Amino acid sequence: MLFFTQCFGAVLDLIHLRFQHYKAKRVFSAAGQLVCVVNPTHSLKYAPTRCAAAQASTEQGILPPCHHHEVVHDPQLVPCTCPLFSCPWEGHLEVVVPHLRQTHRINILQGAEIVFLATDMHLPAPTDWIIMHSCLGHQFLLVLRKQEKYEGHPQFFATMMLIGTPTQADNFTYRLELNRNQRRLKWEATPRSILECVDSVISDGDCLVLNTSLAQLFSDNGSLAIGIAITTSKVHSSEAEM
Amino acid sequence: MLFFTQCFGAVLDLIHLRFQHYKAKRVFSAAGQLVCVVNPTHSLKYAPTRCAAAQASTEQGILPPCHHHEVVHDPQLVPCTCPLFSCPWEGHLEVVVPHLRQTHRINILQGAEIVFLATDMHLPAPTDWIIMHSCLGHQFLLVLRKQEKYEGHPQFFATMMLIGTPTQADNFTYRLELNRNQRRLKWEATPRSILECVDSVISDGDCLVLNTSLAQLFSDNGSLAIGIAITTSKVHSSEAEM
Repeated sequence: MLFFTQCFGAVLDLIHLRFQHYKAKRVFSAAGQLVCVVNPTHSLKYAPTRCAAAQASTEQGILPPCHHHEVVHDPQLVPCTCPLFSCPWEGHLEVVVPHLRQTHRINILQGAEIVFLATDMHLPAPTDWIIMHSCLGHQFLLVLRKQEKYEGHPQFFATMMLIGTPTQADNFTYRLELNRNQRRLKWEATPRSILECVDSVISDGDCLVLNTSLAQLFSDNGSLAIGIAITTSKVHSSEAEM
Repeated sequence: MLFFTQCFGAVLDLIHLRFQHYKAKRVFSAAGQLVCVVNPTHSLKYAPTRCAAAQASTEQGILPPCHHHEVVHDPQLVPCTCPLFSCPWEGHLEVVVPHLRQTHRINILQGAEIVFLATDMHLPAPTDWIIMHSCLGHQFLLVLRKQEKYEGHPQFFATMMLIGTPTQADNFTYRLELNRNQRRLKWEATPRSILECVDSVISDGDCLVLNTSLAQLFSDNGSLAIGIAITTSKVHSSEAEM
């Protein structure tokens, strides 16, 4: 009986996934774009992020136990930068991707242009939607976060981090694009390195920021589709051309 | 003596204007784009807008004295929609432009693509930067507003209104673009009609929204340059193409 219930649950999940894919295809009908359905994670609510913990410790005058600038003596070692979990793991940059995949079950997608479809946007803050993106010989981490910077007013923040050094990150440009209801919003920037803290990028607001009403306008039935493209940025001459 | 002092003041103003133009040219070096320096106006602080007054009256159970849906019996008549002033004027759509130019001294610029250079971004909220834009046979009103939606956290809101009916507005698409410090932010939407209230567009957040830190990243020495382009939107098929 339990087996049949589980089977039924799995079939329901598949139908739901198929429905999400259909919704995404309807929004992004451009052929060849890979649509990836990303479900939210709430762990942040119960386990404060490494940066938050580090900041709290600093405020209390204690040396932050997990801030990599303070603690990691080997500069080749990187602490786990997954923003969702206060994970004690640390390792070399090369093994960050397998760690994120295996321990935190973060999916990895291939392709220069993909569509990130975040489901259940209505869920209360704080909530994160995370995916890895493999492209141009590197891996990137896309983080969409719902957070209340001002109490009672949740906002959405989206940024891309390179799983690499800041020097490597400078060679790329990422673009996030929302397109629905006769509105289009595009954000282009150089990705930050995963060695920087995703929390501080978001708290600085140096990313794509959406208020709830705008997020609703861009959402389709509770799901937000974000088109992602990564390119190499040889010369930063783009400032001149509007 | 007073004459010489005034002359000296005028020369200083000219130098300041020239400097602002130079700054804008430096940001937008693309040849042929008209750069318009827009100084802020603070009138909003002292004279609440028509919509705010209307809302306040409605909350008190009084029929709003200046809400055009309630008061203007002739549907051809439009109240003064300049968001800066609680102006008792009302007239036909055709004479809104001369009224805004003559009474409120709002500049009008020609050209499909212009650069709006808002100066003195550091000034406290509420502050407005306004300009009219003549293009494709119609006139548009660009409003940039610094406002504290959440106390102590000023944000910038930019929107474009057509000085025409909502049906006419549906034929256009406007684009606002910020480009500096290896970051680019683009907002594209259908302009709203001037018959709708600019205050409600801004309070709904259905426009380009910038937090202070992002506005600083896009600013150059206290001035924010916004590239503006208006096109005709024949078919709204753009949602498919990312």
